[in-house]
Amino acid sequence: MAFVCENISVNEEGVLTFAGQSTEELARQYGTPLYLMDEDRIRQNCRTYVNAFSEHFPEGSMPLFAGKACCFKQIYRIISSENMGCDVVSSGEIFTASEAGMDMEKAFFHGNNKTDADIKFAMDRGVGYFVADNEEEILAIEAEAAARGIVQKVLLRITPGIDPHTYEAVSTGKVDSKFGQAIATGQAEEITALTLRQEHVELAGFHCHVGSQVFAEDVFERASDVMLEFIADMNAKFGYMAGCLNLGGGYGVRYVDSDPYLYIAEKIGSVAGAIKRKCESLDIPVPVICMEPGRSIVADAGMTLYTAGSVKKIPGYKNYVSVDGGMTDNPRYALYKSSYSCYNASRMNEEADMEVTIGGRCCESGDLIQLDVPMPSSTERGDIIAVCTTGAYNYSMSSNYNRIPRPAVVMLKSGSSYVAVRRETFEDVAAQDI
Amino acid sequence: MAFVCENISVNEEGVLTFAGQSTEELARQYGTPLYLMDEDRIRQNCRTYVNAFSEHFPEGSMPLFAGKACCFKQIYRIISSENMGCDVVSSGEIFTASEAGMDMEKAFFHGNNKTDADIKFAMDRGVGYFVADNEEEILAIEAEAAARGIVQKVLLRITPGIDPHTYEAVSTGKVDSKFGQAIATGQAEEITALTLRQEHVELAGFHCHVGSQVFAEDVFERASDVMLEFIADMNAKFGYMAGCLNLGGGYGVRYVDSDPYLYIAEKIGSVAGAIKRKCESLDIPVPVICMEPGRSIVADAGMTLYTAGSVKKIPGYKNYVSVDGGMTDNPRYALYKSSYSCYNASRMNEEADMEVTIGGRCCESGDLIQLDVPMPSSTERGDIIAVCTTGAYNYSMSSNYNRIPRPAVVMLKSGSSYVAVRRETFEDVAAQDI
Repeated sequence: MAFVCENISVNEEGVLTFAGQSTEELARQYGTPLYLMDEDRIRQNCRTYVNAFSEHFPEGSMPLFAGKACCFKQIYRIISSENMGCDVVSSGEIFTASEAGMDMEKAFFHGNNKTDADIKFAMDRGVGYFVADNEEEILAIEAEAAARGIVQKVLLRITPGIDPHTYEAVSTGKVDSKFGQAIATGQAEEITALTLRQEHVELAGFHCHVGSQVFAEDVFERASDVMLEFIADMNAKFGYMAGCLNLGGGYGVRYVDSDPYLYIAEKIGSVAGAIKRKCESLDIPVPVICMEPGRSIVADAGMTLYTAGSVKKIPGYKNYVSVDGGMTDNPRYALYKSSYSCYNASRMNEEADMEVTIGGRCCESGDLIQLDVPMPSSTERGDIIAVCTTGAYNYSMSSNYNRIPRPAVVMLKSGSSYVAVRRETFEDVAAQDI
Repeated sequence: MAFVCENISVNEEGVLTFAGQSTEELARQYGTPLYLMDEDRIRQNCRTYVNAFSEHFPEGSMPLFAGKACCFKQIYRIISSENMGCDVVSSGEIFTASEAGMDMEKAFFHGNNKTDADIKFAMDRGVGYFVADNEEEILAIEAEAAARGIVQKVLLRITPGIDPHTYEAVSTGKVDSKFGQAIATGQAEEITALTLRQEHVELAGFHCHVGSQVFAEDVFERASDVMLEFIADMNAKFGYMAGCLNLGGGYGVRYVDSDPYLYIAEKIGSVAGAIKRKCESLDIPVPVICMEPGRSIVADAGMTLYTAGSVKKIPGYKNYVSVDGGMTDNPRYALYKSSYSCYNASRMNEEADMEVTIGGRCCESGDLIQLDVPMPSSTERGDIIAVCTTGAYNYSMSSNYNRIPRPAVVMLKSGSSYVAVRRETFEDVAAQDI
């Protein structure tokens, strides 16, 4: 049986395993619902980027882990020990990364709306780079840096006008976006000029982000093409040669068998080739390159375990298996109709002879995890249901809707396991109530 | 200027007011983003139901506040002092309600997947009624009640097969649903027979829920028609006369001017008339009636305040105003494309001469609050942006995506204000990280 990721298998008892460990035993030990994360896989994914970067890009180039995909202290300890930097998007992420001991000089602070309080907090914590989104922000950074007598490094977020043909909500490189300043409208040039006039802001380069879950062959090559032309243009117009080009995130991951395989090391090699050729043709030096992988670092390192409750067979309609979690721990089906590979982890040796809808436990009809999942008709209350590739945008997007406590995150490492985020209690959920 | 709810107005300085208080002053005092709730309006909404129930329905009938719309301790203190019962959907809601001092005999415990732990916890806390969803649950309740030597009252959740023509994710009365047992398939009768055979379960009646945000003229009348026929049928078949009919939730509220006005007291009068006529024609006594309003108790008692960050005008495309919250405190646009009435609360006397998209601060393109909002072109960083009718399904669905702390909930009462839920700190957000 082939699974979406090689860290998934089946043991002799017919139980699904993850990172070589029995999902039934993990469910028994830690309870459900439960997020599992495969630390070895996270490290392997980090190394794919780090090695490809050191092979193909100029010194100083660095992959930055996009914490919004999965943010808690232990993740920063792992990616930091793998020599990755990080992309942070809020004071809360800065807090988490810096409390975990991350070298904040390697942190890039994103966001379309940094408040004055955010700007102060980021400078307090020594964030290396602000990725500034708009003119108000440049002026606010200048004012705060001046008050502190420091010079703050920034990149400018530019929208290159590229549609990565991905789902609209995760497509961000188009001109019509809440993010950044478009080249096409002249606003990218305007903010560059404004930034170069500031005394306490050092323009370190440019950033773009064309989207998330990108599979299309040449999206990063097209983006770097546009951005390098912009860099050459700014050099011609202002005598400013950008030292850094940050291409943002987005390689796709496999959620289901029909998703293509991506060989990220090779893709990075091609992007690097395209960048070198373009720089030669523009007669500019190759800048330091950053990318911001989030999903492709953590998604396939994650699996969620649930316990089945009722199994409902409605003659002439659908079959439903209810689980003890749902949109509270994984809102991606409710938000995007996302696909996942799901299994009855307790009965992997039985034929999957019925199709079921996996429903969550929230009092909301839209609280579904997946439709049309093959499952044995013997499925019953107490079986462990596994949802694969949940390492990205599950824990980080989780809520306490219906006052449901968030699950623990348990890390699997070389045959052992440990808690990275503890399970919430009812007291935790009501802790802010007066 | 007419607003969606009468608790919204404009003061002499041209500042939007809520429950008679200046939104600018509240934002200054408590910070943004901020949830405001108008306690007087909540109480008025409760009384509409409580008074209509006592006028039209048999003694013992009771409106139950559906906590999933907005769940924290103070809400239970308010609805409880207004003589409402409550609908709880999880152990977390049971914990919150009972810690707040709610009389749990008046609590109805919902959910399509109650775990064994939930069943134990609900009995520990003395929940009056379980609304049982499926056969596995009936057997689990019987087993736990037997072990305790008690008899547990239950209603059975029945799907009447009615489509309320509302948005699919909030439509739950159809046969093809993760909830309940359908009359059409014979499964409702089967679970009734099963329940009547149990020694430690007392069947108190039946429940249905046809959907949420319902405006259609006769949905509750059609639902009660179908349910009363089922009650008469069960009486004929098993000699069991249901004492209680719980019609679930769902009257709609006005989010925007184009939403109709609903006169809930009158609607309840019509439903009561239809129930009496139907019971006469079926020659059965009128059962005790429950309904489960959530949204119509709290939605228009809520308003969210944000501070504007950047104002981005993209020539030939859209204008964006970024606020310091977003899908983390209000995921309803991202989930359902929900409509809201939004204002620049600081500039109510200026002409709204541009259209803007209000974008949240999350690093996600889909993080929008509303499109095509009229706003003055003078709108700038620091202005207070108000989103109306956010009392339901905002705080309760909020998340810490991007590690953004959840806002405080501030209650407004007769010209004064107090904190009902305190603002999360970064430490709170990372409290479970190890």
